[in-house]
Amino acid sequence: DYQALDKLIIGCCGGDGIGPAITAQAERVLKAVLKDEVASGKIDFRDIEGLTIENRIVVNKAIPDDVLAELKACHVILKGPTTTPSKGDGPNIESANVAMRRELDLFANVRPVSVPELGIDWTFFRENTEGEYVLGSRGIHIDEDISFDFRVITTQGVKRIAKAAFDFARNNGKKRVAIITKANILKKTDGKFLELCYEVAKDYPEIQVDDWFVDIISANLINEKVRSGFEVFVLPNLYGDIITDEAAQIQGGVGTAGSANIGNRYSMFEAIHGSAPRMVETGRAQYANPASMIKAAELLLRHIGHVDKADRVLAALKVANSTVKMTGRSDGATGAEFADCVIRNL
Amino acid sequence: DYQALDKLIIGCCGGDGIGPAITAQAERVLKAVLKDEVASGKIDFRDIEGLTIENRIVVNKAIPDDVLAELKACHVILKGPTTTPSKGDGPNIESANVAMRRELDLFANVRPVSVPELGIDWTFFRENTEGEYVLGSRGIHIDEDISFDFRVITTQGVKRIAKAAFDFARNNGKKRVAIITKANILKKTDGKFLELCYEVAKDYPEIQVDDWFVDIISANLINEKVRSGFEVFVLPNLYGDIITDEAAQIQGGVGTAGSANIGNRYSMFEAIHGSAPRMVETGRAQYANPASMIKAAELLLRHIGHVDKADRVLAALKVANSTVKMTGRSDGATGAEFADCVIRNL
Ligand SMILES: CC(C)[C@H](C(=O)O)[C@@H](O)C(=O)O
Ligand SMILES: CC(C)[C@H](C(=O)O)[C@@H](O)C(=O)O
Repeated sequence: DYQALDKLIIGCCGGDGIGPAITAQAERVLKAVLKDEVASGKIDFRDIEGLTIENRIVVNKAIPDDVLAELKACHVILKGPTTTPSKGDGPNIESANVAMRRELDLFANVRPVSVPELGIDWTFFRENTEGEYVLGSRGIHIDEDISFDFRVITTQGVKRIAKAAFDFARNNGKKRVAIITKANILKKTDGKFLELCYEVAKDYPEIQVDDWFVDIISANLINEKVRSGFEVFVLPNLYGDIITDEAAQIQGGVGTAGSANIGNRYSMFEAIHGSAPRMVETGRAQYANPASMIKAAELLLRHIGHVDKADRVLAALKVANSTVKMTGRSDGATGAEFADCVIRNL
Repeated sequence: DYQALDKLIIGCCGGDGIGPAITAQAERVLKAVLKDEVASGKIDFRDIEGLTIENRIVVNKAIPDDVLAELKACHVILKGPTTTPSKGDGPNIESANVAMRRELDLFANVRPVSVPELGIDWTFFRENTEGEYVLGSRGIHIDEDISFDFRVITTQGVKRIAKAAFDFARNNGKKRVAIITKANILKKTDGKFLELCYEVAKDYPEIQVDDWFVDIISANLINEKVRSGFEVFVLPNLYGDIITDEAAQIQGGVGTAGSANIGNRYSMFEAIHGSAPRMVETGRAQYANPASMIKAAELLLRHIGHVDKADRVLAALKVANSTVKMTGRSDGATGAEFADCVIRNL
């Protein structure tokens, strides 16, 4: 219970590429809406520097030790996108995102997508610590010709994400949960995921459950005849990654979506898009749209119990989205101007 | 070169669920358009029975030996969808699709999606024999709590699918190939896939290459601002499965898409959707829409060099799509009536 804390510590971690620029704007919005709590000392902001790709390469670790210690001294974290070397010939450093989700045990990646005019109100519960991601940087080149990666699913891992999804459904008046797998192919891991979700579902007899293969779900999300019938989704890590980007696009683009990474002790809020290094290289970071990070800030407020403030941010964000013209270039507004508009309309 | 054969043998394999019903209609269309070749003995049709889920459970094999022998006696195959037990508690039988792709070494799954009015003309080259699929039924339950599945990528496997994609681009006047991976996470397998695709690309200097992560591609396919810029995609097995269902939906639904499975010796043409067992259970198999299988038949004709006939089938299919009302129930037309319309318009 965050309200019961003497002092709630919010860590702000800019990340790479356009991350610092857009995170700074979201932090301004948070500080504006929480100014009384900050003034009274109930809430404290901490800037966490050092989670940069340059540092990570130097210490050869996805999260430098001192950064991890700083993160662990916070209750909730607002985090900008981070860059991961991906080419096989680059340094083999794990994604900072993935490492943070694991180190802070943020097992539930909750991604809401809502498009009222299309009858869409979806909440995705993406399992956030297992699947392809857990051993992602530890696959093996058996020899020059054959390479292996691994996919891991555990009983505890499935049960806790399923419980999170069903609890959310129950507490938010949702009637249906859809389990997404490819259990016809990945019989051991997805088979287990599917089975255990159905087992957890037994404790929620009022919720209607069904299951779908991930391929047909990617079609169904854009099928007007069926998509408004979906409410809550529970799905393994990588499918959640793919499907939520598609869902975010229906809402207006990956730049419109925030993501809550929830664990029992910590939670972290971020954009779902990448760090857009090309924008920085071409000197356009200040024109990056901070909407996604402000959306993440809104999810953070909701999570710590400031529901009214979250609603105010959401409403102000809508005004900014429809009045401030962001082009990502100098013919559009800057991220600071966008945040100014949000703050004026809080 | 199929034209040089004394006799080209086309095997027709109905599969499960609605498979036999819709395959029979596509076979009627093929026989109608190829009637001269059949009459002259240049082309022979063979019905291959026995690839049913019931048989597969009895012999405990994804493809019974006698069926496999019959398949191998054909040059090209038209195949209906097959059912795979997916629940962890069902029989652990590999997907017949996956087994056939492997046994006949059909390494390139080519899936065209075209929506001229949206400026979309995409061809997906899905790697068809590796990735999650190769050991899909041979994952392991380490113990009650932890399960593993494997993802395998080989040098030969990547090179041949990349070559197929780039050759297609070169021979069809395409300017761009997009490589799709999640190489930031699956560093060994997708890292290898990405690297080798770029290596193959060097032999095609006139083709522009770029690479994308699979999550953002699922967003980009439905992003009107960028999607018409894509032409040819090359991607690992499971991503191809997911992304092509989404792409097919943009074209009108998975029921509108056909899929060519191409190897050096054999090739197989199928629908991309499942066997819809619920339609059979409720007695509606004869109302199933055979459009997807007729699309597969069209791809088959094109592959064996009957390009004019393929064009005629495509044109007739368009007429049927827009004039025959299929509802999947008795208030709509039957699959036979749909095929009648296609045949009348050949
Ligand atoms: C940056 C990357 C590791 C991450 C993921 O794949 O989870 C991102 O795409 C996301 O969805 O949060
Ligand atoms: C039936 C299934 C094994 C198959 C696949 O996953 O490849 C299907 O979805 C497809 O796309 O052809």
